[in-house]
Amino acid sequence: MIKVGIIGVGTVGSHVVKILQENEDIITARSGKKIVPIMGIVRDTRKKRDVSIPLSSNVDDVLENPEIDIVIELMGGVDEAYQIVTRALKNKKAVVTANKALLAYHRYELRDLAGSTPIGYEASVAGGIPIIKALREGLSANHIEAIKGIMNGTCNFILTKMMNEKAEFTDVLKEAQALGYAEADPTFDVGGFDAAHKLLILASIAYGIDVKPEEILIEGIEYINSEDIYFAKEFGYNIKLLTIAKKSGNEVELRVHPALVPMKQMIAKVDGVMNGISVIGDRVGETMYYGPGAGGSATASAVVSDLIDIARHQKNSPMLGFIKPLEKSGLTLMPKNNICTQYYIRATVIDKIGVLSKISEILGKHSISIRSFLQKQDGKREECAVLLFSTHTCKEHDIQNALHELSELEFIEHKPVMIRIEE
Amino acid sequence: MIKVGIIGVGTVGSHVVKILQENEDIITARSGKKIVPIMGIVRDTRKKRDVSIPLSSNVDDVLENPEIDIVIELMGGVDEAYQIVTRALKNKKAVVTANKALLAYHRYELRDLAGSTPIGYEASVAGGIPIIKALREGLSANHIEAIKGIMNGTCNFILTKMMNEKAEFTDVLKEAQALGYAEADPTFDVGGFDAAHKLLILASIAYGIDVKPEEILIEGIEYINSEDIYFAKEFGYNIKLLTIAKKSGNEVELRVHPALVPMKQMIAKVDGVMNGISVIGDRVGETMYYGPGAGGSATASAVVSDLIDIARHQKNSPMLGFIKPLEKSGLTLMPKNNICTQYYIRATVIDKIGVLSKISEILGKHSISIRSFLQKQDGKREECAVLLFSTHTCKEHDIQNALHELSELEFIEHKPVMIRIEE
Repeated sequence: MIKVGIIGVGTVGSHVVKILQENEDIITARSGKKIVPIMGIVRDTRKKRDVSIPLSSNVDDVLENPEIDIVIELMGGVDEAYQIVTRALKNKKAVVTANKALLAYHRYELRDLAGSTPIGYEASVAGGIPIIKALREGLSANHIEAIKGIMNGTCNFILTKMMNEKAEFTDVLKEAQALGYAEADPTFDVGGFDAAHKLLILASIAYGIDVKPEEILIEGIEYINSEDIYFAKEFGYNIKLLTIAKKSGNEVELRVHPALVPMKQMIAKVDGVMNGISVIGDRVGETMYYGPGAGGSATASAVVSDLIDIARHQKNSPMLGFIKPLEKSGLTLMPKNNICTQYYIRATVIDKIGVLSKISEILGKHSISIRSFLQKQDGKREECAVLLFSTHTCKEHDIQNALHELSELEFIEHKPVMIRIEE
Repeated sequence: MIKVGIIGVGTVGSHVVKILQENEDIITARSGKKIVPIMGIVRDTRKKRDVSIPLSSNVDDVLENPEIDIVIELMGGVDEAYQIVTRALKNKKAVVTANKALLAYHRYELRDLAGSTPIGYEASVAGGIPIIKALREGLSANHIEAIKGIMNGTCNFILTKMMNEKAEFTDVLKEAQALGYAEADPTFDVGGFDAAHKLLILASIAYGIDVKPEEILIEGIEYINSEDIYFAKEFGYNIKLLTIAKKSGNEVELRVHPALVPMKQMIAKVDGVMNGISVIGDRVGETMYYGPGAGGSATASAVVSDLIDIARHQKNSPMLGFIKPLEKSGLTLMPKNNICTQYYIRATVIDKIGVLSKISEILGKHSISIRSFLQKQDGKREECAVLLFSTHTCKEHDIQNALHELSELEFIEHKPVMIRIEE
């Protein structure tokens, strides 16, 4: 029998207890052992909860409990969770966590501390989709060439609604908040930070690369509007918040930003709150993983699959996946300015003679060539026009300089908006 | 160091050797050991091959070689492969196989014989997609409610072409043969048998159910024509060869047949030679797995992932997944006649008064109610009309009886064609 303690018995924690109890038949069959939750830690033991295990507010009742084999950390946050997971590992207890922020900041320290003690973290990325397992084990024969993911359901819900209904961001955000798909302060989701945490975890498995969220390119979806949607539809794209990890030579690009993705790509077909992750391996080609990226029951499904794995294999599995020898591959983070891709630009200008030629001149000076172009009258101001265009592949550095120069022109109303295109 | 022997060094086998040699860096890092192919068995050693390992035509050089830890079986076929895998297991060698036919017929005997010796078979279903791992480990916390798969690239290529170009089956089949996507004798693929073998493997993992291909409903795509495509498009469906495993009470439906699938479902968006498998778990909901279902390199990627798993875990993993306690769940195969679903029917009739009322009367007698209806003039014969209609949910038994009765009517030209609808 394997005994587990749960630190943080909220939505996910309650579902973990439920699954262990209600699906005991298959869990015991598949793991070869009974897995029993014997203690939950909560901040307030007086609050009514729908779980049938003893609860305590003292973490020692789990961390110092010699009966407990596996500690499930579901409290969230970084610092306190790090202290708790560290103590669990020091006491030689296996750890299962759904905490992406913890891993985004401390995954390598935890790996070094854990040694042969397993740490399961399937639930930390894309909820119920077994993407960690696919990347770490299913595709283990491959050098990973690229990962492109839709890993934030809030953003995908908002962008899907905007595409389907030509609605504006602020209106759809309000709707998402009303439906419980977005927080009162939505920054962590719509700003791309949540997706960035997940990206770093996958990038460590694929590339053994140790970087912090602050080091990578992160842009949110707040500035996207119906003109961008219009252009995307016109030219056969969908707009998605993409998490991208891509190997180019000895460098790895890591970035999170909205992107125009060709409609025909499988990842462009992932709609609503769902998540999808496309992985390109050098041997297998493209595989894609799709499913619910959040929700108590789906996330708990991933937590329990980790428990079953640990029960099966004990210490024979390098659970963290980002193992030391991989770090020796010497891959480093590509500086943001060196990214090469295609770009879409929206600029609102005062509609007078010579505007277009001036803009073309500036783009040309920065080695940027236009691929497609659309001009529309501004819906709000008669004297203004909206210019929508895409570029051939060019350097981020050049685009940024060009955008800076454009934004200083007197006939440009706002700083132009740029969205990257990922073919 | 783990030493492997390969029996059958064709396309997949050569790629296995290449991956082990060319991706040695990550494979060693991820498995913790070097994995080295030391011997390949081929029928004709004089034939020139692009592999740099010693070759022999004597299987004993692998099976009786005390140095070899893992035997990779890539020869295909059932009987001889069964003999060879049996000998390998008796010699306590782990086995990795891509042979779906072998497992469709002998998976339970092999399980019982293997005991704690691992058998890896990720490559036997859906090529490079790690669906075995997802189902066996990633979703291990779930009772599986249903599996719907597109697991035959040949059929999906043909059906996608038919949908996109309104082409007829025989023409597209010829094109597929010219492109190498279909065999000279395409029966095994287009008749649904290949997909059925794969379905049985997945059904064993999900439900512990031991049935042979002959016991389940298998229908191919040969009879689908452009009228069916027309109806499907008109009513928002795609036509796919689906493999379905579905739990209803204590029974499991297992069936392979073309089906009308609503366009908006993710599985309906899997086009061309690609495979996709949707799995519904009681806790996680729907997850979907997409990728190349065939091809030497993709299939070899799956074979090598099994080798890495075995190197990591040795005997700690119930590799076969369809473990004995699951069989006690007492699930049995649902008799074909008890299937309940919606149906689409195409009937070519001589266009005269009273035809429609006669058909309606027969359907009504068998408790079948019509959901949507389309009548078209027959393109070839002016006096004929084609009736296309779908039904509400009814029993397979009733549909079969009604079709039989309809086919005996004098004004019906051919036996009506029926395609199931899977919402």
